[in-house]
Amino acid sequence: MSEITTESTQRNIALKIAYDGTHYHGFQRQPEFHGPTVQGSLESVWAKLVEEVVTLNTAGRTDRGVHATGQVVNFRTAARIPAAKIPKAMNSLLPRDIRVVDAQEVADSFHARFSARWKRYDYEIDNHTIADVFKRLYSVHVPVPLDWQRMQQAAQLMVGRHNFKAFSSVGGNSKTFERTLYVCQVTEHQGQIRITCIGDGFLYNMVRIIAGTLIYVGRKRIPPEAIPGILERGERKRGGPTAAPRGLTLSYVHYGEELPKDIFPEFYH
Amino acid sequence: MSEITTESTQRNIALKIAYDGTHYHGFQRQPEFHGPTVQGSLESVWAKLVEEVVTLNTAGRTDRGVHATGQVVNFRTAARIPAAKIPKAMNSLLPRDIRVVDAQEVADSFHARFSARWKRYDYEIDNHTIADVFKRLYSVHVPVPLDWQRMQQAAQLMVGRHNFKAFSSVGGNSKTFERTLYVCQVTEHQGQIRITCIGDGFLYNMVRIIAGTLIYVGRKRIPPEAIPGILERGERKRGGPTAAPRGLTLSYVHYGEELPKDIFPEFYH
Repeated sequence: MSEITTESTQRNIALKIAYDGTHYHGFQRQPEFHGPTVQGSLESVWAKLVEEVVTLNTAGRTDRGVHATGQVVNFRTAARIPAAKIPKAMNSLLPRDIRVVDAQEVADSFHARFSARWKRYDYEIDNHTIADVFKRLYSVHVPVPLDWQRMQQAAQLMVGRHNFKAFSSVGGNSKTFERTLYVCQVTEHQGQIRITCIGDGFLYNMVRIIAGTLIYVGRKRIPPEAIPGILERGERKRGGPTAAPRGLTLSYVHYGEELPKDIFPEFYH
Repeated sequence: MSEITTESTQRNIALKIAYDGTHYHGFQRQPEFHGPTVQGSLESVWAKLVEEVVTLNTAGRTDRGVHATGQVVNFRTAARIPAAKIPKAMNSLLPRDIRVVDAQEVADSFHARFSARWKRYDYEIDNHTIADVFKRLYSVHVPVPLDWQRMQQAAQLMVGRHNFKAFSSVGGNSKTFERTLYVCQVTEHQGQIRITCIGDGFLYNMVRIIAGTLIYVGRKRIPPEAIPGILERGERKRGGPTAAPRGLTLSYVHYGEELPKDIFPEFYH
């Protein structure tokens, strides 16, 4: 006898989410009450909307204070609301610092985390002597001059498949430290410096430690030539400090086969 | 006999100030306690720094929720701190949403308000269907499509010397309504619309009513050709609503003779 379940009537829905992480205790719902989380806000809005309890899978469990413009989540639902109507419906109930920017029905096999092929993070540094008040929540302020071209030289030495143990904090649950960085790029525009990392996976605090290390390179505390040695030795203490979470944004998660040129146009012209 | 005063030993100091107005009850110190103000914060930091009570003159008394990148204040002081050291000293004590970006010793006759010749305000509109979380505190979100070129047509009809009574709220203390707008320009970049107004003086809520009216023009509720008639009749009710304060920024105050081309390059190329 075959067991009849409701599974077959459930759809798999993926959402693209943007949030200002300033007021959240990270993405992931906390087992006990520690403060508001992005996941908790999304799940409770969904419950209000269709009276259904769901658990979200997420592409990247961003830390407290980290932002996103392109976070992706998925969940299974029996609710009949058309995917195209989900953003407006959820946004009407969500706090203004979280927005559902897109919703799609996806294949049953789709998992926001395990199906992800590449992720893009951007780390913003305000390098003006006096901090820009409008960027204070979304950048780290470094008032001393940074040599961003030197930082770019060092960033180029991070690109490729490496053991990134030196660029990870204890506390992550990764078994291996091998990751591929496709892009590690430092750009500058009117005193604002951006570090862009695109890779197949990121260790705990990896982008923030890369940012902290590149800031040390920009301040001439670490020479760019030291990067291969730091990677090779795998000792966390040889890098720079872990840069503050407010500078970090999860910008994009890619699920297709190839790294799409049109999504990262600035690295191809 | 000549009276000896301490006046002659006092210097006149001008400060350029930037602030995120989100958490302030306007610029002007309140007679009673209504909540924090930018002026109150600056004056109390100065008192802590040099143990001296001063009263600031200000170029523009921005309303609750309005921002500034180029606010100017001046005050007289007997303190000996060199002007060049004032920004760093005050910034070390100020909250992170207020920054002193410049300080100069100015002529005794200089008054931040009465010496000002031109002011520039920018009004930001987020015209994406779904609001950008990172602009939510610094823009008004208009989810319906705005025809910004139509708005620009209407804006051009505001330029010149006019009676702006129709574009002012009751509650201002201006005796005349004649003002000159040198620039009233609508620009668009990636779904973000900016209204820039440069003029010799602004009535109470004038830029916010211009913004609200131009938004109505963009939504096709008011035709651009109606602007001269609205100006002529001087009736507030014929314009659009007063747009929300969070979209407004006081960007620049000019004290020299001529409108400097290098400061507004975008209007001259």
